[in-house]
Amino acid sequence: MTDDTANYKTRVRASFAKQGLMTTLGATLGNVSSGRVEIILHPKPAISQQHGFVHAGAVSAIADTAAGYAALSMMPPGRGVLTTEFKINLVAPALGDRIIARGVVVKAGHTLTLAQTEVFAASEGKERLIALLTATLMAIEGKEGVDD
Amino acid sequence: MTDDTANYKTRVRASFAKQGLMTTLGATLGNVSSGRVEIILHPKPAISQQHGFVHAGAVSAIADTAAGYAALSMMPPGRGVLTTEFKINLVAPALGDRIIARGVVVKAGHTLTLAQTEVFAASEGKERLIALLTATLMAIEGKEGVDD
Amino acid sequence: MTDDTANYKTRVRASFAKQGLMTTLGATLGNVSSGRVEIILHPKPAISQQHGFVHAGAVSAIADTAAGYAALSMMPPGRGVLTTEFKINLVAPALGDRIIARGVVVKAGHTLTLAQTEVFAASEGKERLIALLTATLMAIEGKEGVDD
Amino acid sequence: MTDDTANYKTRVRASFAKQGLMTTLGATLGNVSSGRVEIILHPKPAISQQHGFVHAGAVSAIADTAAGYAALSMMPPGRGVLTTEFKINLVAPALGDRIIARGVVVKAGHTLTLAQTEVFAASEGKERLIALLTATLMAIEGKEGVDD
Repeated sequence: MTDDTANYKTRVRASFAKQGLMTTLGATLGNVSSGRVEIILHPKPAISQQHGFVHAGAVSAIADTAAGYAALSMMPPGRGVLTTEFKINLVAPALGDRIIARGVVVKAGHTLTLAQTEVFAASEGKERLIALLTATLMAIEGKEGVDD
Repeated sequence: MTDDTANYKTRVRASFAKQGLMTTLGATLGNVSSGRVEIILHPKPAISQQHGFVHAGAVSAIADTAAGYAALSMMPPGRGVLTTEFKINLVAPALGDRIIARGVVVKAGHTLTLAQTEVFAASEGKERLIALLTATLMAIEGKEGVDD
Repeated sequence: MTDDTANYKTRVRASFAKQGLMTTLGATLGNVSSGRVEIILHPKPAISQQHGFVHAGAVSAIADTAAGYAALSMMPPGRGVLTTEFKINLVAPALGDRIIARGVVVKAGHTLTLAQTEVFAASEGKERLIALLTATLMAIEGKEGVDD
Repeated sequence: MTDDTANYKTRVRASFAKQGLMTTLGATLGNVSSGRVEIILHPKPAISQQHGFVHAGAVSAIADTAAGYAALSMMPPGRGVLTTEFKINLVAPALGDRIIARGVVVKAGHTLTLAQTEVFAASEGKERLIALLTATLMAIEGKEGVDD
């Protein structure tokens, strides 16, 4: 493993650990590679909407976070990311053993990066697509407290 | 107050109380009128992202919920709503004493309703816009467990 | 009228005249004020989709352009704008005597501006909402050929 | 070739030919298979924005149309499609010899279908991604004049 590889993984994991919301939702970080980040959520009443499905807001939260860290994994140290916008299509109810968000960088730019996240519900070893998100991430540099 | 007015308010409040995620985030329901619903969130570490701002996922969760209940408030009893898609633009960091999402129905249709939510951060008595969401809500009828 | 007022109106009109697509669609510029731009389209077979309505692509084109010029109207000379993303909800068929897109700046930023366009179909003196667009416009400076 | 295969291809081509806007833009239909449709556009001043690039509205028009026909190709005869919403991210200027939009169905549903279109600019035999669109298409049945 090169230093750079080690670095972006460490950076993503350290930053994820600082996100209070991810802890509150019970979300965990899965595979992390350059431009690709996976986040996993376990359905439970504490993150539900009124019909008992996982709330679209919780699905969006992990999907947006996966997109953001996919973008961060490709940025040099010292640069942070902020989501400027995202859109999510919810194509099936979020139900199952696990909800898995897989974020991928589509186009990395100097100021703006486009990333996409597919969200799957896994049950009995099978995955089905439940949501698709596209997000624009903005790189922030030289702003105190925003370096990840 | 007419019976109908009382009914939709009761319905929205009862449904909101069933959303585990809203309780987990500490979100509360504000004003509810026909086609308009307000949700309030109090910034705290448990709902933060890595820089200490309220997480875009938490902002989206209350914005989507405000849009959904604005739609539900205009539907006859027995019909439920599901978000099919939303898009959110995040125009300023979510920081302040309170985050307030105000959802409004833009166009109510038989199958699909378009709603929009403006999200404000309130500090020292002043509000500034931090996010704008548009959502498509789908009416569901005759499906067990989905009547709100 | 101050010089500045005159300037942004002249700038928007001169730039609009350079858009080959607007001429091809038969679109015309309506009212222009600071942060607000109106564009008008006349339904005809040359801009239709398969059912005879105005094509969503033509509606989007004038809605995006109205958002873009609303943003440009608030920028200093020498700075140009590019759309980085937009989302449009189409809530009713585009039919009528005229299609009118009204773009308004929601939040003007140094790098990114958020604008929103409401699109109406006018018939027999009445207007009804047919579409709602939100767009992110990026300011471009110091790039040859991109100063409007 | 089975009858069904022949049918959806014929149906898509016949419907595309009725779209006045596609003719006006000079767009042509490329490959058509089940759930996948390609549309090609040739850059020219008549479809430009103010800097000489192909207008985002023209890019969106072919991207939305490719998504719509990808959806239509999977529907039974007699059912039509309407776009209810789309979002497009524009990641590079639309410049080159040809602009190619490739629409693919992500999730086909009874009422709503989610499709995605990647748009490429081709120059000197190379393609680069310039835009990404996600669209929701609504199936329409039993409405006169809307069967494609």
